[in-house]
Amino acid sequence: MSDDAGLRTRLGPGGEFDLIRRFLENAPELPPEVRIGPGDDAAVLADGWVLTTDLSVEEVHFRRSWITDEEIGYRAAAVALSDLAAMAASPVALLVSIAAPRDPAVDLVALNRGLTAAAQSVGAAIIGGDLSRSPGPLFVDVVAVGRTAWPVRRDGAEPGDDVWVTGELGSAAAAVRQWRAGRDPDPALRARFARPEPRIGAAFCLVEQGVVDALIDISDGLAGDAGHLAAASGTRIVLEEARVPIAQAARDAFGEDALALALHGGEDYELCFVTDPGVVDPGYFEKHYGLAVTRVGTVTEGAGVWLRSASGDESELTRGGFDHWTERPGEETD
Amino acid sequence: MSDDAGLRTRLGPGGEFDLIRRFLENAPELPPEVRIGPGDDAAVLADGWVLTTDLSVEEVHFRRSWITDEEIGYRAAAVALSDLAAMAASPVALLVSIAAPRDPAVDLVALNRGLTAAAQSVGAAIIGGDLSRSPGPLFVDVVAVGRTAWPVRRDGAEPGDDVWVTGELGSAAAAVRQWRAGRDPDPALRARFARPEPRIGAAFCLVEQGVVDALIDISDGLAGDAGHLAAASGTRIVLEEARVPIAQAARDAFGEDALALALHGGEDYELCFVTDPGVVDPGYFEKHYGLAVTRVGTVTEGAGVWLRSASGDESELTRGGFDHWTERPGEETD
Repeated sequence: MSDDAGLRTRLGPGGEFDLIRRFLENAPELPPEVRIGPGDDAAVLADGWVLTTDLSVEEVHFRRSWITDEEIGYRAAAVALSDLAAMAASPVALLVSIAAPRDPAVDLVALNRGLTAAAQSVGAAIIGGDLSRSPGPLFVDVVAVGRTAWPVRRDGAEPGDDVWVTGELGSAAAAVRQWRAGRDPDPALRARFARPEPRIGAAFCLVEQGVVDALIDISDGLAGDAGHLAAASGTRIVLEEARVPIAQAARDAFGEDALALALHGGEDYELCFVTDPGVVDPGYFEKHYGLAVTRVGTVTEGAGVWLRSASGDESELTRGGFDHWTERPGEETD
Repeated sequence: MSDDAGLRTRLGPGGEFDLIRRFLENAPELPPEVRIGPGDDAAVLADGWVLTTDLSVEEVHFRRSWITDEEIGYRAAAVALSDLAAMAASPVALLVSIAAPRDPAVDLVALNRGLTAAAQSVGAAIIGGDLSRSPGPLFVDVVAVGRTAWPVRRDGAEPGDDVWVTGELGSAAAAVRQWRAGRDPDPALRARFARPEPRIGAAFCLVEQGVVDALIDISDGLAGDAGHLAAASGTRIVLEEARVPIAQAARDAFGEDALALALHGGEDYELCFVTDPGVVDPGYFEKHYGLAVTRVGTVTEGAGVWLRSASGDESELTRGGFDHWTERPGEETD
């Protein structure tokens, strides 16, 4: 889903960002049937319909040598569905546009099996799409359609609030780093990249408890996506280094480097959310929903995302997330 | 918008068609919030929301040497909006996914200007999207979102009905043929390719008159899209050669060959519709709506699309429309 902050991250701080900001600012006034337009994880229409689109491009978001065609389909759908989780919306349907190269040929049946499995895992169906050949890479664009009476936005964080994440971070980025080093990733790491789980159920639990002031999915890395929350809310977020829930398998594989993977490696597709201070009992979520939530920081006055070390030093995380355009390490492949 | 018949046309009659049929047949049962799923020009949700997605791929649907980046944007949006016309839906919004190469760089501001102009021409706004770089061609996927209380489907044609088209056919295909021959197209032909007009207003006029039993937009060529109507309705359609409204500029450029361009050249984005016999007075539409409609044939028992010559001979139009996969002449470029 495009948004100013997200695009800033992806496009880097240079001229392209300015181009894209104009791209979005040129948008005409929203029609009355549109409740939420550009700038959040998804658009919201009258009647509570939620729409988001997510593009997966070979050699940018994945390599065909890394994962199977079925996993490419699963992952493309899961990534789009994650944006519905980020609005606390209930998935209904997907539309899928595919441009597929013929050489080497894509197994469209396997691709579809993956797309369908991801859709079915959250009760959605594929209701349309488009198909073309591609003279270049494989492109898969997935539109996720959901519904909610109460979309949770990015802009509700206030100074004093707590910042939380679900699950553990760093696995998908660790798998990518292993692939890029020419190794087969550890199975636990590989699975998080190949078959991410959109946190639809987790979002429902959080909303059911009525405690969430702001919500986003972690697709660009915790630093980057916390940055989107902070920017949308006009606040600063301070993350505590010792509290970042780094996946054990990522720690086993990369030791101290795993922190950077958890902060900057995107595509874990966990949720980051903000609550009033002291209202969340992690044990309650664990016991009643089987959902691990970890407080990773706080919201303060100011701007940007900062990391506080164990010794209390704070440093700004100037670059967050994964950047398709400026060839950060990670998934860039050319 | 994918559909069985449309994909059959695009993928050709070979193994790929079978793959794609399985692709669609694997779709799970539709959720209760979905009124119309795969198989028409667009999907329809509860509350009358209409969704369709349309993919434009460089070197498949257009060449960057043919039209400007602004025109690429305009055309990509117009093509998606045409699917809303084909459901007689009122446009509300677009979501746009773009994967853009850096060399030669795409002018994203110009691309957006074209997308926005096409959206504004029918009262819609761009409310979201996604953006990536592309290691290959420029790729633009446009989701068009509309609304209608009374979607007009493809499956309402009955033996004895009349078959009509709006406007004139063959211009866009004539422009492509001129480009492929190394010439600059005539301006009137070029404009139909570069800035097609989605027939939103025409669809409203037709629906307002309450005469339309089935409706489709002509994106694959009259033969191909009449074939989709015939297949969806379980009928045969006979087109009368002498009645096909060939654009004068296409006739001027290609003489007798212009008939084939009108029948098989896609992307004029006029409408093809079916009515009870004798209920349409073309003069009324011309006078009250400024809308040219031409009766081009009739619906009969049977299957397929046939062409009746002036002498009364009938031949089946076995190949309809533009096929991305089997390299028909037209827009294929490799």
